[in-house]
Amino acid sequence: MEKGMNEPYYAVIFTSRRTEGDRGYGSMADRMEELARRQPGFIGVESVRDASGAGITVSYWSSLEAIADWKRNEAHRVAQEKGREVWYENYTVRICRVEREYAYDNEQG
Amino acid sequence: MEKGMNEPYYAVIFTSRRTEGDRGYGSMADRMEELARRQPGFIGVESVRDASGAGITVSYWSSLEAIADWKRNEAHRVAQEKGREVWYENYTVRICRVEREYAYDNEQG
Repeated sequence: MEKGMNEPYYAVIFTSRRTEGDRGYGSMADRMEELARRQPGFIGVESVRDASGAGITVSYWSSLEAIADWKRNEAHRVAQEKGREVWYENYTVRICRVEREYAYDNEQG
Repeated sequence: MEKGMNEPYYAVIFTSRRTEGDRGYGSMADRMEELARRQPGFIGVESVRDASGAGITVSYWSSLEAIADWKRNEAHRVAQEKGREVWYENYTVRICRVEREYAYDNEQG
Protein backbone atom coordinates (compact mmCIF):
# COMPACT_ATOMS: atom_id res chain seq x y z
CA MET A 1 0.00 0.00 0.00
CA GLU A 2 1.55 3.28 -1.02
CA LYS A 3 -1.45 5.36 -0.09
CA GLY A 4 -1.66 7.43 3.09
CA MET A 5 -4.13 5.92 5.53
CA ASN A 6 -6.15 9.09 5.98
CA GLU A 7 -7.13 9.63 2.37
CA PRO A 8 -10.35 7.96 1.26
CA TYR A 9 -9.89 5.06 -1.15
CA TYR A 10 -11.80 2.13 -2.58
CA ALA A 11 -11.57 -1.65 -2.55
CA VAL A 12 -12.82 -4.05 -5.21
CA ILE A 13 -13.60 -7.43 -3.64
CA PHE A 14 -13.58 -10.18 -6.28
CA THR A 15 -14.73 -13.56 -4.92
CA SER A 16 -14.68 -16.43 -7.38
CA ARG A 17 -14.67 -20.15 -8.01
CA ARG A 18 -12.43 -21.42 -10.81
CA THR A 19 -13.23 -24.13 -13.29
CA GLU A 20 -10.81 -27.10 -13.28
CA GLY A 21 -7.43 -26.96 -15.02
CA ASP A 22 -5.28 -23.95 -15.79
CA ARG A 23 -6.30 -23.36 -19.45
CA GLY A 24 -4.17 -20.23 -19.69
CA TYR A 25 -5.51 -18.70 -16.49
CA GLY A 26 -2.20 -18.32 -14.63
CA SER A 27 -0.44 -16.34 -17.33
CA MET A 28 -3.53 -14.16 -17.90
CA ALA A 29 -3.77 -13.41 -14.17
CA ASP A 30 -0.11 -12.37 -14.07
CA ARG A 31 -0.57 -10.19 -17.14
CA MET A 32 -3.71 -8.51 -15.76
CA GLU A 33 -1.96 -7.73 -12.47
CA GLU A 34 0.94 -6.20 -14.41
CA LEU A 35 -1.49 -4.06 -16.44
CA ALA A 36 -3.53 -3.05 -13.38
CA ARG A 37 -0.37 -1.84 -11.62
CA ARG A 38 0.19 0.60 -14.49
CA GLN A 39 -3.35 2.05 -14.31
CA PRO A 40 -3.76 5.55 -12.86
CA GLY A 41 -5.22 5.30 -9.37
CA PHE A 42 -4.03 1.75 -8.68
CA ILE A 43 -2.89 1.39 -5.05
CA GLY A 44 -2.34 -2.34 -4.48
CA VAL A 45 -3.73 -5.87 -4.76
CA GLU A 46 -3.93 -8.93 -2.50
CA SER A 47 -5.02 -12.32 -3.79
CA VAL A 48 -5.50 -15.78 -2.28
CA ARG A 49 -6.79 -18.99 -3.87
CA ASP A 50 -7.01 -22.34 -2.12
CA ALA A 51 -6.68 -25.86 -3.51
CA SER A 52 -10.48 -26.19 -3.88
CA GLY A 53 -10.56 -23.37 -6.45
CA ALA A 54 -12.10 -20.73 -4.16
CA GLY A 55 -10.41 -17.35 -4.47
CA ILE A 56 -10.64 -13.84 -3.08
CA THR A 57 -8.78 -10.95 -4.73
CA VAL A 58 -8.98 -7.44 -3.29
CA SER A 59 -7.61 -4.53 -5.31
CA TYR A 60 -7.33 -0.99 -3.95
CA TRP A 61 -7.95 2.19 -5.95
CA SER A 62 -7.88 5.91 -5.35
CA SER A 63 -11.33 6.61 -6.85
CA LEU A 64 -14.44 5.07 -8.43
CA GLU A 65 -13.33 6.59 -11.74
CA ALA A 66 -10.04 4.67 -11.58
CA ILE A 67 -12.02 1.44 -11.03
CA ALA A 68 -14.34 2.21 -13.96
CA ASP A 69 -11.36 2.99 -16.22
CA TRP A 70 -9.73 -0.34 -15.38
CA LYS A 71 -12.98 -2.19 -16.03
CA ARG A 72 -13.12 -0.59 -19.49
CA ASN A 73 -9.45 -1.31 -20.33
CA GLU A 74 -9.44 -3.21 -23.64
CA ALA A 75 -7.13 -6.08 -22.64
CA HIS A 76 -9.01 -6.40 -19.37
CA ARG A 77 -12.34 -6.61 -21.24
CA VAL A 78 -11.02 -9.50 -23.31
CA ALA A 79 -9.88 -11.23 -20.09
CA GLN A 80 -13.27 -10.62 -18.43
CA GLU A 81 -15.04 -12.23 -21.37
CA LYS A 82 -12.73 -15.24 -21.35
CA GLY A 83 -13.19 -15.43 -17.58
CA ARG A 84 -16.92 -15.99 -18.05
CA GLU A 85 -16.45 -18.41 -20.96
CA VAL A 86 -13.58 -20.52 -19.62
CA TRP A 87 -12.03 -19.76 -16.23
CA TYR A 88 -14.79 -19.09 -13.70
CA GLU A 89 -17.72 -21.14 -12.48
CA ASN A 90 -18.97 -18.01 -10.77
CA TYR A 91 -17.81 -14.73 -9.34
CA THR A 92 -19.06 -11.67 -7.50
CA VAL A 93 -17.56 -8.18 -7.68
CA ARG A 94 -18.19 -5.71 -4.86
CA ILE A 95 -17.03 -2.12 -5.11
CA CYS A 96 -16.51 -0.64 -1.66
CA ARG A 97 -15.42 2.57 -0.03
CA VAL A 98 -12.88 1.93 2.75
CA GLU A 99 -14.24 3.69 5.84
CA ARG A 100 -11.36 2.88 8.19
CA GLU A 101 -8.62 0.37 8.82
CA TYR A 102 -6.18 -0.90 11.41
CA ALA A 103 -3.32 -3.34 11.33
CA TYR A 104 -1.16 -5.58 13.50
CA ASP A 105 2.36 -6.73 12.74
CA ASN A 106 4.13 -9.13 15.07
CA GLU A 107 7.54 -7.74 14.09
CA GLN A 108 6.50 -4.27 15.16
CA GLY A 109 4.30 -5.16 18.08
CA MET B 1 -26.05 -13.64 1.22
CA GLU B 2 -29.54 -13.19 2.54
CA LYS B 3 -29.54 -9.43 2.10
CA GLY B 4 -31.34 -7.65 -0.72
CA MET B 5 -28.88 -6.14 -3.18
CA ASN B 6 -30.33 -2.64 -2.97
CA GLU B 7 -29.93 -2.07 0.75
CA PRO B 8 -26.62 -0.55 1.84
CA TYR B 9 -24.37 -2.88 3.79
CA TYR B 10 -20.79 -3.19 4.94
CA ALA B 11 -17.84 -5.52 4.37
CA VAL B 12 -14.97 -6.22 6.76
CA ILE B 13 -11.88 -7.29 4.80
CA PHE B 14 -9.47 -9.21 7.03
CA THR B 15 -6.16 -10.01 5.30
CA SER B 16 -3.66 -12.00 7.34
CA ARG B 17 -0.61 -14.20 7.45
CA ARG B 18 -0.68 -17.14 9.88
CA THR B 19 2.18 -18.34 12.03
CA GLU B 20 3.19 -21.98 11.45
CA GLY B 21 1.26 -24.89 12.97
CA ASP B 22 -2.39 -25.04 13.98
CA ARG B 23 -2.04 -24.37 17.74
CA GLY B 24 -5.79 -24.37 18.25
CA TYR B 25 -6.47 -21.98 15.38
CA GLY B 26 -8.83 -24.20 13.35
CA SER B 27 -11.25 -24.89 16.18
CA MET B 28 -11.20 -21.22 17.24
CA ALA B 29 -11.94 -20.09 13.69
CA ASP B 30 -14.91 -22.47 13.47
CA ARG B 31 -16.20 -21.28 16.84
CA MET B 32 -15.85 -17.59 15.92
CA GLU B 33 -17.73 -18.11 12.66
CA GLU B 34 -20.51 -19.88 14.57
CA LEU B 35 -20.70 -16.97 17.05
CA ALA B 36 -20.57 -14.32 14.31
CA ARG B 37 -23.50 -15.97 12.51
CA ARG B 38 -25.61 -15.44 15.64
CA GLN B 39 -24.76 -11.73 15.91
CA PRO B 40 -27.46 -9.20 15.00
CA GLY B 41 -26.67 -7.68 11.61
CA PHE B 42 -24.52 -10.56 10.36
CA ILE B 43 -25.14 -11.20 6.64
CA GLY B 44 -22.47 -13.66 5.52
CA VAL B 45 -18.79 -14.57 5.41
CA GLU B 46 -16.33 -15.82 2.78
CA SER B 47 -12.86 -17.04 3.66
CA VAL B 48 -9.87 -18.39 1.72
CA ARG B 49 -6.42 -19.37 2.97
CA ASP B 50 -3.68 -20.84 0.78
CA ALA B 51 -0.92 -23.31 1.64
CA SER B 52 1.58 -20.47 2.24
CA GLY B 53 -0.48 -19.15 5.17
CA ALA B 54 -1.89 -16.08 3.39
CA GLY B 55 -5.60 -15.59 4.04
CA ILE B 56 -8.43 -13.23 3.15
CA THR B 57 -11.73 -13.33 5.05
CA VAL B 58 -14.57 -10.99 4.12
CA SER B 59 -17.59 -10.74 6.42
CA TYR B 60 -20.73 -8.78 5.55
CA TRP B 61 -22.81 -6.77 8.00
CA SER B 62 -25.94 -4.62 7.91
CA SER B 63 -24.40 -1.62 9.74
CA LEU B 64 -21.24 -0.17 11.29
CA GLU B 65 -22.87 -0.68 14.69
CA ALA B 66 -23.22 -4.42 14.05
CA ILE B 67 -19.49 -4.55 13.21
CA ALA B 68 -18.56 -2.64 16.37
CA ASP B 69 -20.76 -4.93 18.50
CA TRP B 70 -19.06 -8.02 17.11
CA LYS B 71 -15.61 -6.52 17.71
CA ARG B 72 -16.59 -5.98 21.37
CA ASN B 73 -18.06 -9.48 21.84
CA GLU B 74 -16.30 -11.01 24.85
CA ALA B 75 -15.37 -14.38 23.32
CA HIS B 76 -14.26 -12.58 20.17
CA ARG B 77 -12.03 -10.24 22.22
CA VAL B 78 -10.28 -13.24 23.76
CA ALA B 79 -9.78 -14.70 20.27
CA GLN B 80 -8.42 -11.36 18.95
CA GLU B 81 -5.88 -11.25 21.76
CA LYS B 82 -4.77 -14.83 21.18
CA GLY B 83 -4.61 -14.05 17.46
CA ARG B 84 -1.98 -11.39 18.11
CA GLU B 85 -0.07 -13.55 20.61
CA VAL B 86 -0.11 -16.87 18.79
CA TRP B 87 -1.87 -17.23 15.44
CA TYR B 88 -1.00 -14.28 13.22
CA GLU B 89 2.28 -12.90 11.94
CA ASN B 90 0.33 -9.87 10.79
CA TYR B 91 -3.11 -8.77 9.73
CA THR B 92 -5.01 -5.76 8.41
CA VAL B 93 -8.70 -5.04 8.96
CA ARG B 94 -10.54 -2.74 6.55
CA ILE B 95 -14.11 -1.69 7.22
CA CYS B 96 -15.87 -0.79 3.98
CA ARG B 97 -19.22 0.36 2.71
CA VAL B 98 -20.37 -1.70 -0.29
CA GLU B 99 -21.23 0.83 -3.00
CA ARG B 100 -22.39 -1.64 -5.64
CA GLU B 101 -22.00 -5.23 -6.80
CA TYR B 102 -22.57 -7.56 -9.69
CA ALA B 103 -22.23 -11.28 -10.15
CA TYR B 104 -21.81 -13.99 -12.75
CA ASP B 105 -22.84 -17.62 -12.42
CA ASN B 106 -22.09 -20.09 -15.18
CA GLU B 107 -25.11 -22.20 -14.26
CA GLN B 108 -27.42 -19.26 -14.78
CA GLY B 109 -25.67 -17.57 -17.64
